[in-house]
Amino acid sequence: MPRTLIRDLAAAVGEEVTVYGWVNALRLQRKLQFVIVRDHTGLVQITNKRTDEAGELEQLIEHGMTPESAVKITGVVISAPNVKLGGLEIQPTAVEVVSRADAMPIDRQTGIDQRLDWRFLDVRQPERQLTFAVQTTLEEALREFAYAEGCTEMHTPKLMGTASESGSEVFAVKYFDRTAYLAQSPQFYKQMAIAGGIDKVFEIGPVFRAEPSFTSRHSTEFTGLDVEIAWIEDVEDVMRFEERMLAHALRRIEERHGEAIREIFGVEVTVPDVAFPRYTMAEAISLLRARGWDPEGVKEDLDPEGERMISRIAAEEHGSEFVFITEFPISVRPFYHLRPEHNPDVTASFDLLWKGLEITTGAQREHRHDVLLKQAEEKGLGLEPLTSYTDCFRFGTPPHGGFGAGVNRILMVLLGLESIRDAMFLFRGPNRLTP
Amino acid sequence: MPRTLIRDLAAAVGEEVTVYGWVNALRLQRKLQFVIVRDHTGLVQITNKRTDEAGELEQLIEHGMTPESAVKITGVVISAPNVKLGGLEIQPTAVEVVSRADAMPIDRQTGIDQRLDWRFLDVRQPERQLTFAVQTTLEEALREFAYAEGCTEMHTPKLMGTASESGSEVFAVKYFDRTAYLAQSPQFYKQMAIAGGIDKVFEIGPVFRAEPSFTSRHSTEFTGLDVEIAWIEDVEDVMRFEERMLAHALRRIEERHGEAIREIFGVEVTVPDVAFPRYTMAEAISLLRARGWDPEGVKEDLDPEGERMISRIAAEEHGSEFVFITEFPISVRPFYHLRPEHNPDVTASFDLLWKGLEITTGAQREHRHDVLLKQAEEKGLGLEPLTSYTDCFRFGTPPHGGFGAGVNRILMVLLGLESIRDAMFLFRGPNRLTP
Repeated sequence: MPRTLIRDLAAAVGEEVTVYGWVNALRLQRKLQFVIVRDHTGLVQITNKRTDEAGELEQLIEHGMTPESAVKITGVVISAPNVKLGGLEIQPTAVEVVSRADAMPIDRQTGIDQRLDWRFLDVRQPERQLTFAVQTTLEEALREFAYAEGCTEMHTPKLMGTASESGSEVFAVKYFDRTAYLAQSPQFYKQMAIAGGIDKVFEIGPVFRAEPSFTSRHSTEFTGLDVEIAWIEDVEDVMRFEERMLAHALRRIEERHGEAIREIFGVEVTVPDVAFPRYTMAEAISLLRARGWDPEGVKEDLDPEGERMISRIAAEEHGSEFVFITEFPISVRPFYHLRPEHNPDVTASFDLLWKGLEITTGAQREHRHDVLLKQAEEKGLGLEPLTSYTDCFRFGTPPHGGFGAGVNRILMVLLGLESIRDAMFLFRGPNRLTP
Repeated sequence: MPRTLIRDLAAAVGEEVTVYGWVNALRLQRKLQFVIVRDHTGLVQITNKRTDEAGELEQLIEHGMTPESAVKITGVVISAPNVKLGGLEIQPTAVEVVSRADAMPIDRQTGIDQRLDWRFLDVRQPERQLTFAVQTTLEEALREFAYAEGCTEMHTPKLMGTASESGSEVFAVKYFDRTAYLAQSPQFYKQMAIAGGIDKVFEIGPVFRAEPSFTSRHSTEFTGLDVEIAWIEDVEDVMRFEERMLAHALRRIEERHGEAIREIFGVEVTVPDVAFPRYTMAEAISLLRARGWDPEGVKEDLDPEGERMISRIAAEEHGSEFVFITEFPISVRPFYHLRPEHNPDVTASFDLLWKGLEITTGAQREHRHDVLLKQAEEKGLGLEPLTSYTDCFRFGTPPHGGFGAGVNRILMVLLGLESIRDAMFLFRGPNRLTP
């Protein structure tokens, strides 16, 4: 019989149906057999009380059935107001164990490391199912916005011939008789697309960071959202693009999953007002120092504590979960960030923080070939290795800017997850390459 | 002034506008200045005939302007029926060279290798702009179909702790103090998602093949479309999913780009009927042998010539550009392909050919743990290294199957491109890691 999804059972009362799913729980007694079956749309109770002529219960559900076995159950949907799961149950006529499960190696109390060892079993939990449903909606909505803005979706190479700008934090790959490197960002390539006359470009794909970091917000491989747009007036155009994009995605998520997220994660999805508040780095630092941050007064960038504090200030002052920090000093930004005319001591750059966590870095890029070379030299960089990058600015390249955001970090903040390890299917860290 | 896109100029006759774009061509004379400006939406002619009080032409367009410079041109849109480009022109009032172009290192006659060296300039050509617009629509439509079918979009890791099934053709990565490998397919991971209760899963992302191949259809990195669906009855469910998915995507492409593809590539986009014709491998081989293929009669699989011939046969017999080849022999398929009950000497597998080129490989997977181990042993594989894979079948895994398709190959066939190098932004091959 064709499959009926559990969420559709209410419309099938009185009919015979077949549900496919996993044994969520079971109680097999001599006079009564109960099984709770779970599919990706819900739970249903199976109640077997069918007796034979002698008045004995027919053992339709074999006693070897185990929790988490994959089953197909055919039976009649009965209205049963006392049953908590939707006020209905299925009285079975045929039960098939499609794949019997061994004893579970993890349970609800298992710590995260062992959960990750058995991630495919962990993913069966409702909060993980919801996590990936939300991720799907998040990306669908980000793309929907990008398409509407006229973006072209480009796939940039993950294999590079030379280590990207920083040189550090890059994985080396044995590539036939030479060495390749894994892209730690599509930065260079998306700018190349802009130089190629692609008006707006976006990509959602893997990025790789060879950082030996063990924090709750770092991983060596994650999903990046990258956007680059041409013909901007200034970096504000980029920030406005991003805030509208995120607001659109959060609206979609609230509509589709708001209730489930509230129920399962206890988190309210707030669709933000745009524009988000903006503090220049100078403003942020003086606000933070007034509250006792960085007592030595030496930092030019925000540390995680500073990020959390400035987010709290933005929440107090503007009622916003989001805050842009702008105009980062030249010292903490790469040579290719444009320096605004009104203040050439800083860069036309920004970070976006959400509830205290950095989720984005962006900037207007320097598109003038001569200025770019000058800035590279000032940073003490050799021009020769940069030629393949700087050549992109010799043939008519419009002003442009963009940003890179971490999809898993967005998901982590959105659902209030404690670790980025739960905001991706299969986490990769310095000590973890499996499963 | 805000930007007006060139495609929108017809609605602005009589108004002053600013267009942003590149100098497609120019002719600067003493008495008349012409510039053709190109943006991503079209071409427009700029005609300067403004004279000063002495009757001399005002040199609004500086003589240092070069082809491919990025420019902003403000002027009044004039109806000019004799002008080929949309019957209008712009009479300029202000001209700004935003970024002057050096002399172009490539032109329309340049061979593909040097074109790829300067890919960002090559991408400015109309056929490349269309290629990536079509790619964007293709992926949008594939996803649209996947979402409607209830698929979850998963990002599977590209860094793996062990080389995947074949062991060969895998790139090794220095991963801190050990070795990782680049995933040559999400195969294992998407099955893991199925074991995790994700009902249907899809991914569009990079796959890596360390093959030293130099053909027009191979690359070491490309964009893969992967789908895996649970609770299938048999492999037909997978094939039906794919043919409907492709038909949906081709319908969208035909609607949005059919005319441009005809004009620029000279190719007709045909929305296929489903179902596509199917030949078992045994049928295909006997059809081919009857036409003189493989005179020695030793092949168990199709070579590129056989693929082209069987595609021609399908076109003649069924009027179809597409053909499924099914039931590949066990010898040419991996151990985890299911063997159908009605014919256990073959696998429940398929390839999909389009106009003679293989674009997909798919199968129903063996989900029964004991059968899977038996099949692995028969293939002479050690069970120990396979444990992390085979363990996924110990805890209740439903019948499932899926396929992997090459997005760039689809694009190559769709647009009639001679080489896959033109069906991706930045080609990667054994000898090419740049730009």
